Amino acid sequence: MKKINIAIIGIGRIGKIHLRNIISHFPQANIVAAADTNYTAEDFKKIYKETIFFSTDPAEVISMPNVDAIVICTPTSSHAQLIEKALESGKHIFCEKPIDLSLERTILLVKKAKASGLKLMLGFNRRFDPDFMQAHKNIRAGKIGDIQVVKITSRDPGLPPIDYIKNSGGLFMDMAIHDFDMARYMMGKEVKEVYANGLVLVDKKVAEAGDIDTALTTLVFEDGTYAVIDNSRKAVYGYDQRIEVFGSNGMIQVKNNLHNSNVLFDADGIHQALPLDFFMDRYASSYLNEMQHFIDALSNDIPLSVTGDDGLKATVIAVAAKKSVEEKRPVQISEINL
Amino acid sequence: MKKINIAIIGIGRIGKIHLRNIISHFPQANIVAAADTNYTAEDFKKIYKETIFFSTDPAEVISMPNVDAIVICTPTSSHAQLIEKALESGKHIFCEKPIDLSLERTILLVKKAKASGLKLMLGFNRRFDPDFMQAHKNIRAGKIGDIQVVKITSRDPGLPPIDYIKNSGGLFMDMAIHDFDMARYMMGKEVKEVYANGLVLVDKKVAEAGDIDTALTTLVFEDGTYAVIDNSRKAVYGYDQRIEVFGSNGMIQVKNNLHNSNVLFDADGIHQALPLDFFMDRYASSYLNEMQHFIDALSNDIPLSVTGDDGLKATVIAVAAKKSVEEKRPVQISEINL
Amino acid sequence: MKKINIAIIGIGRIGKIHLRNIISHFPQANIVAAADTNYTAEDFKKIYKETIFFSTDPAEVISMPNVDAIVICTPTSSHAQLIEKALESGKHIFCEKPIDLSLERTILLVKKAKASGLKLMLGFNRRFDPDFMQAHKNIRAGKIGDIQVVKITSRDPGLPPIDYIKNSGGLFMDMAIHDFDMARYMMGKEVKEVYANGLVLVDKKVAEAGDIDTALTTLVFEDGTYAVIDNSRKAVYGYDQRIEVFGSNGMIQVKNNLHNSNVLFDADGIHQALPLDFFMDRYASSYLNEMQHFIDALSNDIPLSVTGDDGLKATVIAVAAKKSVEEKRPVQISEINL
Amino acid sequence: MKKINIAIIGIGRIGKIHLRNIISHFPQANIVAAADTNYTAEDFKKIYKETIFFSTDPAEVISMPNVDAIVICTPTSSHAQLIEKALESGKHIFCEKPIDLSLERTILLVKKAKASGLKLMLGFNRRFDPDFMQAHKNIRAGKIGDIQVVKITSRDPGLPPIDYIKNSGGLFMDMAIHDFDMARYMMGKEVKEVYANGLVLVDKKVAEAGDIDTALTTLVFEDGTYAVIDNSRKAVYGYDQRIEVFGSNGMIQVKNNLHNSNVLFDADGIHQALPLDFFMDRYASSYLNEMQHFIDALSNDIPLSVTGDDGLKATVIAVAAKKSVEEKRPVQISEINL
Repeated sequence: MKKINIAIIGIGRIGKIHLRNIISHFPQANIVAAADTNYTAEDFKKIYKETIFFSTDPAEVISMPNVDAIVICTPTSSHAQLIEKALESGKHIFCEKPIDLSLERTILLVKKAKASGLKLMLGFNRRFDPDFMQAHKNIRAGKIGDIQVVKITSRDPGLPPIDYIKNSGGLFMDMAIHDFDMARYMMGKEVKEVYANGLVLVDKKVAEAGDIDTALTTLVFEDGTYAVIDNSRKAVYGYDQRIEVFGSNGMIQVKNNLHNSNVLFDADGIHQALPLDFFMDRYASSYLNEMQHFIDALSNDIPLSVTGDDGLKATVIAVAAKKSVEEKRPVQISEINL
Repeated sequence: MKKINIAIIGIGRIGKIHLRNIISHFPQANIVAAADTNYTAEDFKKIYKETIFFSTDPAEVISMPNVDAIVICTPTSSHAQLIEKALESGKHIFCEKPIDLSLERTILLVKKAKASGLKLMLGFNRRFDPDFMQAHKNIRAGKIGDIQVVKITSRDPGLPPIDYIKNSGGLFMDMAIHDFDMARYMMGKEVKEVYANGLVLVDKKVAEAGDIDTALTTLVFEDGTYAVIDNSRKAVYGYDQRIEVFGSNGMIQVKNNLHNSNVLFDADGIHQALPLDFFMDRYASSYLNEMQHFIDALSNDIPLSVTGDDGLKATVIAVAAKKSVEEKRPVQISEINL
Repeated sequence: MKKINIAIIGIGRIGKIHLRNIISHFPQANIVAAADTNYTAEDFKKIYKETIFFSTDPAEVISMPNVDAIVICTPTSSHAQLIEKALESGKHIFCEKPIDLSLERTILLVKKAKASGLKLMLGFNRRFDPDFMQAHKNIRAGKIGDIQVVKITSRDPGLPPIDYIKNSGGLFMDMAIHDFDMARYMMGKEVKEVYANGLVLVDKKVAEAGDIDTALTTLVFEDGTYAVIDNSRKAVYGYDQRIEVFGSNGMIQVKNNLHNSNVLFDADGIHQALPLDFFMDRYASSYLNEMQHFIDALSNDIPLSVTGDDGLKATVIAVAAKKSVEEKRPVQISEINL
Repeated sequence: MKKINIAIIGIGRIGKIHLRNIISHFPQANIVAAADTNYTAEDFKKIYKETIFFSTDPAEVISMPNVDAIVICTPTSSHAQLIEKALESGKHIFCEKPIDLSLERTILLVKKAKASGLKLMLGFNRRFDPDFMQAHKNIRAGKIGDIQVVKITSRDPGLPPIDYIKNSGGLFMDMAIHDFDMARYMMGKEVKEVYANGLVLVDKKVAEAGDIDTALTTLVFEDGTYAVIDNSRKAVYGYDQRIEVFGSNGMIQVKNNLHNSNVLFDADGIHQALPLDFFMDRYASSYLNEMQHFIDALSNDIPLSVTGDDGLKATVIAVAAKKSVEEKRPVQISEINL
């Protein structure tokens, strides 16, 4: 089993999670370099181990000869060029979703990655959440028979900054893309048609930014079965992340993870704690598990379970969903120009 | 407060429920006559009080001068003529849904009923279920702010006989019509667009009968907010009747009613009882409450909360849903010829 | 199957429940007479069917020749003499608990009833609650193996009037007696030792009335296994009626029945409705089921599942519990003079 | 804020947890030495960082001048002499419960620790479990008013090896001691009387080893309120760790933590995952949090929330419980010779 040398690019919210996880939890991996255009080397050293080489230039760490793999956690707009550079330098890649906002560039990069023989993993971390993994396992084991309907509720606890929204690629590309991937993962089939409704119900500034904050998307799969995904940028009760899969022999529900297991009974009612606040808490294990999978796949040279192809397929669904809202009709995946 | 004399027509599954409820629970109402073309007077007398006049001819009891109101529980195909006869005889009407499979006749009858000044109540009993009433009350009280999304799960525990399906008017008219009404009730707004997917996943005989057994319907309301309804004719775990309403300040879930409150812990897991089997158990209270409402409205001459208009509107949605499945596109309510 | 003629004595809270249940639900029984020293015949006629004979003198209805069985729902102080009179008149008896506050009289009456060959059923209605029956059934079917511990939580929603408490025989005889019977029912074994702690935490007036309002009782059974019962006269969140049975192969919990199945999520938490208010709601089914059992046993002349003996045994436990609190030590059942 | 140098003694099940936690999570602490009589230095180096000094002689690491604090995770029999040695060497101490099986030695050591001015923390980790902390916080904030009853369910998933039991000091000293501490923690008051029942229901070998495997203990506090603790060495459904606190204004329940949040509905029922297997999973956070507290208290020289006194008080309760079972009567804490 080979020891893997990793360079991480981008040390924002998610980058920090991955950096700490790799340092603390994976004996078969080393963080050997980090890059972030917004940090100074001094800042970085104060927080992280001195033995990690830091640069403000991502290209510098990508080209380091002792680096085996690049973990990309920068804003979406830089993903494509970093992936390209990494492929050129012969590095394996873990990249946060999405690959790129442009479908054409996404297709091109996925092709290049395939041709290179290098591994490209997309950060669809929810596939590695223990609760969803358990559901997936039971579904594949036939516990609910043939899957007929997947229902995903996916609501954020609050609107991100409008500036973030402007550069996000929109609700479908930024937020629902996780749910599109989850629907494919649970179904084990491909989507053929997308019908979406989109609304601005949370804040009018979202409309001004050209986006929506609420959506309902129906995905029809190859065999006619469907998934329905319900998104909102703002659930006042916290991060609402539930899945329900209905099949010929039963149903599996994955419930929210609450802050604690206390139940308070008083004269007003029976009260429980809210769901965990947001993805950093709710999906803490999934970030760990996905990195474990990436490192294991590199160490043992085995195939990844989530590749660039999965990133591409989710992107295509997001493109179709946006088109569906704009044209107020179901859009066939075959209409999206690949 | 006037005492109301009631004649009931049709003493099948639901007719029996209403008959027994009226006999046992409403001091301000009398059952004075009953009619059923499949019973003999002797059969009827064996089971029910001898003081109730019985006829195999519905027309006979409708025209009885001492009858104030007719409760219609016959198969759908006879509803229209019974309603017509009752209106002609100056009787108030409680009728099980739907009014008729034909939209034209439905429109006509609803108009006639309005013109007559007589009361016509549709048996959308779920509006009178204590759990749904509580949700409705909290929603109207503003506990979850502005409603953004209604999600209804409505699954039967098993396929009805194929012969029943053939005469049912189809899944949307027969089964989902309750959910269409519920979505309107919870939303307090009107539907403007319907998009539905329909499938045969339970039994191919359903396809041969020209129907579907599984459906997903998106209702878009006047203001763009939406409801999504998930129907199946067969949930192996029983009658699945849940509603979730999401708003700007929170969410209300109405959960299934289970057979009992036992929780069994053993080496295999934690186990609870299944949901109640079917509508006769699940909605026992709602049948009682809706009849209470009907009788109260007659006794005190106050308006009904569910009228022929509600029956018509749900029927229009069902027609639109069927058209949407056939034409594979969202259908505007304005397309349906009223 | 013989039709049973019943006279009911005492038409207070519980008497009304039994009266209405017998009138509405049991074709194989007739209420032929009623007596209450606090009603006039006119009052009674206004509320109930005119065909029921009413007297202000219980003795009169007990001695009516066409009466087969007496249902006693009067205050405890009159139970003994009514039972005696009924036995003398050759009537079967259903009596609300307890038989009498005096252990001696209880023993005597149970003996007399046995000698008479007439049936005497005690109103331990909770044995007939569907949730507890389901638990009992699963326990007897071996689903949790050998029973090791029974835990009962039994809390009233509020203090009864102090005058009621003064004549109640005390918390153990009035309230916990149901739980003592339930422990025996679940265990299927007899108690050999009782250790109880009693406190006044709700209202000092309870102490002035010579009673307690809070208690914790440990019952040790013949084989050393135990039950623990936790009583309070006041749970601000409503009527708390839970049972947990732990065995060598698992555990069964019976949870509270809530007002409705709504779950409200808002910015403060996740909220559910409170437990049903009090016994009239919580145990509505059990009152019906126990009367069904009584009538069935008479109609078919089969043994009762809850007899005077059960009333006596629960009374003995209550006497021992009171003694344990007074003497601050475990009390053997063998110490109680039978 | 001072950086704390820690030596750990005993690297068994719990020692490993503490060792890994200190290495990974506490920047203000260093592990500078480790000792275990069952390891070789080579074994240790293979698993842990080479920079940690290892000795097979605990005394050696205790006396190291650069060590500030000793974490004792050895079998109970060695606790006393290690505490003594650490106090002599002027080291702060974190010690797994109990201090010693002998009450006399426990008293002596607690006195010595107090006199020394050094900190002695007992590993009552459950006080640091997030769920129990939340309950404690809400109770102290008055959310349920005055506490009246604490109910603790504490069941292990299976019998430990009989050899372990023989040296454990018995169920009360080994297992229930955590619950005795928890009852004091939740109540915020001291125990005055203990009444316990003990049984052998799991395995007769436990009786041969002079112990019990099942117990029910009532603790009466100074003001007469009480706690009841229900212990079993074997719950087939896993590690059952629940607390319920009832007060004048409400109740708080802490429920079990389950393996996952999946709910499976099939034709047999509704199924959830079992509770987490055992303390290493269930209390993973509490081990981390208690060590954080210990290190914080040393770094900032602030008082510990769990001291030798708490260890002594729980030990006294355990001694009284054992005496209660032997003498079959309630035992006053004042009877235990301090």
